[in-house]
Amino acid sequence: MDIDEYMTGVGMRARQASRAMARAGTAAKNDALEAIACAIEREEAALKAANARDVASAREKGLDAAFIDRLTLSDKALRTMIEGLRQVAALPDPIGEIGNLKYRPTGIQVGQMRVPLGVIGIIYESRPNVTIDAAALCLKSGNAVILRGGSEALASNTALAALIKEGLAQAGLPRDAVQVVETADRAAVGKLVTMTQYVDVIVPRGGKSLIARLMEEARVPMIKHLDGICHVYVDDRADIAKALAVCDNAKTHRYGTCNTMETLLVARGIARAVLPALARGYRDKGVELRVDAAARAVLEGAEGLDATMLALVDATEEDWRTEYLAPVLAIKIVDGIDDAIEHINTYGSAHTDAIVTEDHDRAMRFLREVDSASVMVNASTRFADGFEYGLGAEIGISNDKLHARGPVGLEGLTSLKYVVLGHGEVRR
Amino acid sequence: MDIDEYMTGVGMRARQASRAMARAGTAAKNDALEAIACAIEREEAALKAANARDVASAREKGLDAAFIDRLTLSDKALRTMIEGLRQVAALPDPIGEIGNLKYRPTGIQVGQMRVPLGVIGIIYESRPNVTIDAAALCLKSGNAVILRGGSEALASNTALAALIKEGLAQAGLPRDAVQVVETADRAAVGKLVTMTQYVDVIVPRGGKSLIARLMEEARVPMIKHLDGICHVYVDDRADIAKALAVCDNAKTHRYGTCNTMETLLVARGIARAVLPALARGYRDKGVELRVDAAARAVLEGAEGLDATMLALVDATEEDWRTEYLAPVLAIKIVDGIDDAIEHINTYGSAHTDAIVTEDHDRAMRFLREVDSASVMVNASTRFADGFEYGLGAEIGISNDKLHARGPVGLEGLTSLKYVVLGHGEVRR
Repeated sequence: MDIDEYMTGVGMRARQASRAMARAGTAAKNDALEAIACAIEREEAALKAANARDVASAREKGLDAAFIDRLTLSDKALRTMIEGLRQVAALPDPIGEIGNLKYRPTGIQVGQMRVPLGVIGIIYESRPNVTIDAAALCLKSGNAVILRGGSEALASNTALAALIKEGLAQAGLPRDAVQVVETADRAAVGKLVTMTQYVDVIVPRGGKSLIARLMEEARVPMIKHLDGICHVYVDDRADIAKALAVCDNAKTHRYGTCNTMETLLVARGIARAVLPALARGYRDKGVELRVDAAARAVLEGAEGLDATMLALVDATEEDWRTEYLAPVLAIKIVDGIDDAIEHINTYGSAHTDAIVTEDHDRAMRFLREVDSASVMVNASTRFADGFEYGLGAEIGISNDKLHARGPVGLEGLTSLKYVVLGHGEVRR
Repeated sequence: MDIDEYMTGVGMRARQASRAMARAGTAAKNDALEAIACAIEREEAALKAANARDVASAREKGLDAAFIDRLTLSDKALRTMIEGLRQVAALPDPIGEIGNLKYRPTGIQVGQMRVPLGVIGIIYESRPNVTIDAAALCLKSGNAVILRGGSEALASNTALAALIKEGLAQAGLPRDAVQVVETADRAAVGKLVTMTQYVDVIVPRGGKSLIARLMEEARVPMIKHLDGICHVYVDDRADIAKALAVCDNAKTHRYGTCNTMETLLVARGIARAVLPALARGYRDKGVELRVDAAARAVLEGAEGLDATMLALVDATEEDWRTEYLAPVLAIKIVDGIDDAIEHINTYGSAHTDAIVTEDHDRAMRFLREVDSASVMVNASTRFADGFEYGLGAEIGISNDKLHARGPVGLEGLTSLKYVVLGHGEVRR
């Protein structure tokens, strides 16, 4: 197979289908989502059989249990996919909305209309559920989509793609609106991220190494985040109970997520009051603490705390730049809010950062001056999520500054174009 | 001079200054704009002297009259710059606005805050007025800016930069918020468009060749349009008087602008009624007409029109893809609105396209289905402009789909980040 030619064909068909998708009515798009949900319900056995082939060959290759778990289409995974389709169908249709229509002195009316981006490329690992989630969001937002999942999930994805195409056709929409790249050849990815004439945006969903590699190659713009080095800053005017709750949750609710706290900053003035209790909590949950000298001094000097039990590790410069995705936490004592903001803007990844404080001015300063996609006051960084923010669904999180920032839902897959309504006006 | 090291220094200082600019108050930013305006008024003679050196050496190099005209700081150009500064000062400050703040079931409030992009790089030709226009917009929107104008304007730009820095300092803002690249070495541009750690967005202002070259090199995202192949489609339900007015203005108001019509599409059913009158008008203004066979037949068969006077040229496929920027117009007869939309989406540049029709459904279909940054009904494409749209000012026009689309004003130099206000909430 000539990959270049194959991908060009995929791209051309996607572009063509995107035109019909852009004018598709809300009912047709919702009908397609429901038809896909029904087809998955009906073909459960066939889907599981296709998936079993993927799982078997992944096992043969010796892939680990976590990988197999993500690859497997369990009953629960199938139910979640079906529910997800119906949830997306229930979301309001963002397309075609015209806003801000105002008369100008020349007599023309100028406003903005929300329209699909066109063709979205999704690159993801061997998680067949992403095939359905991503297809649903792209379809509802009037886009065509090219899906490139991990090669280990190819049989599952191909089976799912057939059901998606069936659902599209049933609703009178073009089958090519959702295409799965049916080759395991890596060159297909290289082509996908450089076909600027056929693809409007790439959404990579996967680990840092995948995204870093794509960043090198891509010419098509991406909606992506590379890492989530999230901070909580406990200000010296913090409420202690809130600080303990937020810091515990931000680190220990889940270790492997991008919105998990990786560095804790504590104002010098409150360190003695919060750090020993926090450290005890982290120790009980098996979190390794990497501390600067000041934090070590506070912990070793704390009454009623056996600091040797904490097995403190000295933090290095490298720790401030590290996304552990593990039960490890860097801790630094800072002089106050200026120091904290400076640290976050220097070492952070512009993902999600929170302050714990009762002081209004400092809260507002933190919100304005920390240059991150999500900034929070007295709340856990774990809330940085499309569902928690009320977007209804999430295609990814962006910590770039152009276009969508933070969790990206349906609206992030659209853009605004100008509409001008006249009566024969000309420019003088 | 080591260009790499020099530009890295410029980038680092810009990034540093951008932090202070992001938290700068509205009054300080407006004070700086007014101080710069006053400094230009005061230093008029010195500015003209610096400019005269640029003009003299451009003349020595044999650059043409149009080039010299754009380079020259005339009294009128200086007045326009000063007025521009005061107009930008009078615009509302977009920064810090919080919108859409809603309570979620978890108890947190989620909203979005408008913030600067950070550091903007502007690359432009030898037009010193752009130095002030661009600096004013970036400053008002809370960004730091790196200006890289054409090397022939270096003395003028350096003189202007000194006044800008004076104005910034007077208002208590960092002098490095506006920096002019003070080297004519082209390698500086290559470095500027790849310093992703220091520059958030590049706005190129110049001809197609400059932008095409930058697109090859750039790693920093750009707000740009490559060309403006704009269409007017005259539907068979058009009002003839409106069609004549719009088509005349869209082509002949100015030939060299990106929102000028380059291809006229006429529905077969109305061609006999509008094309002869239009052709006569274009002939009188010296516009060369490149026509398809059907348009030629209509014009040659028109009563009372001597078609030989029109000196019609046969259009080729290439004409549908050409931005003439000159008194040349391609004309094609189409079957109707479907054919017109298909032609525009195939050959256009997604810049600005208009329909002339009295039919509501067709007007709405054109607005929705033509995939361009500006879509218009019964209005001249020449209206696609930041001032005409009421943005107050314009840094450029974008025909990309991500981020800003169409004319880009202050808001296009900002983005929205999420703010979360809690009371100690944690995620369950």
